[in-house]
Amino acid sequence: MLLASSVFSSAQQNLWQGEGVRSLEVDASGRATFRLYAPDAKDVAVTGDFLQKGVGSVAMTRDDSGVWSYTTESLASEMYYYSFKVGGVGDIHDPESIYMVRDVARYMNYFIVGGGRGDLYMAQDVGHGSVARVWADVGGVSRRMVVYTPAGYETSDREYPVLYLLHGMGGDEEAWLATGRAAEIMDNLIATGRAEEMIVVMTNGCTRHVSAPGYSHEGMWRPYMSGSMDGSFEEMFEDVVNWVDGCYRTQKCASRRAIAGLSMGGFHAMQISKRYPTMFDYVGLFSAAIFRGESGVAMYEDLEPKLKHQFDNGVELYWIAIGRNDFLYEENVKYRELLDNLDISYTYHESDGGHEWRNWRCYLVEFAQKIFKK
Amino acid sequence: MLLASSVFSSAQQNLWQGEGVRSLEVDASGRATFRLYAPDAKDVAVTGDFLQKGVGSVAMTRDDSGVWSYTTESLASEMYYYSFKVGGVGDIHDPESIYMVRDVARYMNYFIVGGGRGDLYMAQDVGHGSVARVWADVGGVSRRMVVYTPAGYETSDREYPVLYLLHGMGGDEEAWLATGRAAEIMDNLIATGRAEEMIVVMTNGCTRHVSAPGYSHEGMWRPYMSGSMDGSFEEMFEDVVNWVDGCYRTQKCASRRAIAGLSMGGFHAMQISKRYPTMFDYVGLFSAAIFRGESGVAMYEDLEPKLKHQFDNGVELYWIAIGRNDFLYEENVKYRELLDNLDISYTYHESDGGHEWRNWRCYLVEFAQKIFKK
Repeated sequence: MLLASSVFSSAQQNLWQGEGVRSLEVDASGRATFRLYAPDAKDVAVTGDFLQKGVGSVAMTRDDSGVWSYTTESLASEMYYYSFKVGGVGDIHDPESIYMVRDVARYMNYFIVGGGRGDLYMAQDVGHGSVARVWADVGGVSRRMVVYTPAGYETSDREYPVLYLLHGMGGDEEAWLATGRAAEIMDNLIATGRAEEMIVVMTNGCTRHVSAPGYSHEGMWRPYMSGSMDGSFEEMFEDVVNWVDGCYRTQKCASRRAIAGLSMGGFHAMQISKRYPTMFDYVGLFSAAIFRGESGVAMYEDLEPKLKHQFDNGVELYWIAIGRNDFLYEENVKYRELLDNLDISYTYHESDGGHEWRNWRCYLVEFAQKIFKK
Repeated sequence: MLLASSVFSSAQQNLWQGEGVRSLEVDASGRATFRLYAPDAKDVAVTGDFLQKGVGSVAMTRDDSGVWSYTTESLASEMYYYSFKVGGVGDIHDPESIYMVRDVARYMNYFIVGGGRGDLYMAQDVGHGSVARVWADVGGVSRRMVVYTPAGYETSDREYPVLYLLHGMGGDEEAWLATGRAAEIMDNLIATGRAEEMIVVMTNGCTRHVSAPGYSHEGMWRPYMSGSMDGSFEEMFEDVVNWVDGCYRTQKCASRRAIAGLSMGGFHAMQISKRYPTMFDYVGLFSAAIFRGESGVAMYEDLEPKLKHQFDNGVELYWIAIGRNDFLYEENVKYRELLDNLDISYTYHESDGGHEWRNWRCYLVEFAQKIFKK
């Protein structure tokens, strides 16, 4: 609204029309063109995960009007990050784009190439669920979490199953929505009948903070690679489930509850489902940091008999997914050996790639289609 | 989570600790220091609305480590925007801060100086309301809106009054939350007993789009200074109220409904309260674009008898606020003359400043304390 006066006086027609340098365009064959207006820059490059591994950045070319540009080869359908590198300055955001997501302490510009899995990460012409940031009394304090309710929830009176979806170290309750595209993925899977209508609860699994930065009295702090693997988060999870069951129209039984998480969140999902063995029939471990719990935590001890107890109580799906290049790969091999030795039945999904959102989005897509189908 | 592997290997302790250049610090006397690490830059300046009017930017000074800095005089308690200007490149975001809000087509870094009105714009150690992005069937299509419910809403069974809060041209359903600080303001006013517990509904008043950019099948478009002053938004407002009344525990009578808006939203609040004369007992016009409606719209015609009819039905508070330097000031003088001629009673609030969020936040603070008090 800073521009309102110029609008009304029609002095700056270009602002009316939203014109200016079109900083990103993706053509029908998936080629992305980046542009930056920087007439006085010595050199400009673009960087991002659309580049081949090992390529740090690519130089952009200046035209006579001072616009630097670069066009990629055809890109696979995916969500990509990018930023510009300007000589003498370093990485800058695209000043012409409002499409940014935060991963830990950085905002990153992004774009999505459609025509494949990327279509699941975009808002389509389907019913959209609601996304609420709520504050729940858990563990004696008020903590923030994100609740996705499927399209039609507000005007229906039925009860829904619940997926609890947990972030990794450095993340918070916003992570699965932003880089994880959880709301778009759920909308698109539900609208096409591939997933059941469900509530998705995204908690904050770092007990040192009550919320993502900026939303609480903790002030405008800078996020960092923190996490909680000392039992504190797992211990308060019963309160989370009770709060959700008290405030939403949920189906209140293990067969209608799932829990999944990535990295530290996979560890949490493993620990929580074991700590409350009658709470969840569906468990998803995405690139899980299985053996990273702090030592001396009673809840983490006696792993094997407790797992046995959990599975004796019945688990419908125990889904383990990891990329072949994930630095936690060997850890997950060991965990599967442990489960094998206990005669515990699980489903294993191995993908390309490493410890990255590109995999975790795919794992959510897969897992969400497998739960609550009985 | 891109950094997860380095975290686990402890290779980059600085990322663990969240260290790096501290790009913004505000000391106890309200002096802000800005810093940017740009060792190879020729010159760096900082700009923002913390500067005296007419000062475009101020030069920053480079130290031996390549960090440029500038410290302001003491600033009044307020929310401020800033960005860096780097020689040869132009305006860039603060790469070290995650605190950004979008106004129309630009993200802006911001900071808040406390000790006065700024305290109302920060999350304090009080109960926080929930903020939900929902999709409502209005005017035959699904449209996105933001619903603030006060702390305790989920666990109570009482009904609440509703404030409908409308954005200006170029804004959308996100505007009042981001630059308007509506959630923080309401939390802080309610927690201190200055405002009643209420639901606040923030609609999208541009009927050409169903949502803020990126959240619908309309794709990743670039926002521009658009608006709807052709009667289309006002006409669908009955559906909005009915949807909210159907999905939330609301008090369903005029004495428990308020509507307010800024600029185009003030125009909308004026038109909607007149179009549905038994719907709202409280009306707030913030820097309202009173006479900017498109011509030939039946709803906008016969203003005086319709206003008379509205006030004959009873209006508890008709609150008009504007800044002395607002480009719509004269328009509001004329509107007050028109109301005076009709013997219509209203409350007038004149402030310093112009057509700017700094005023609209204050107007919300004032207005929210005056409604639903009977």
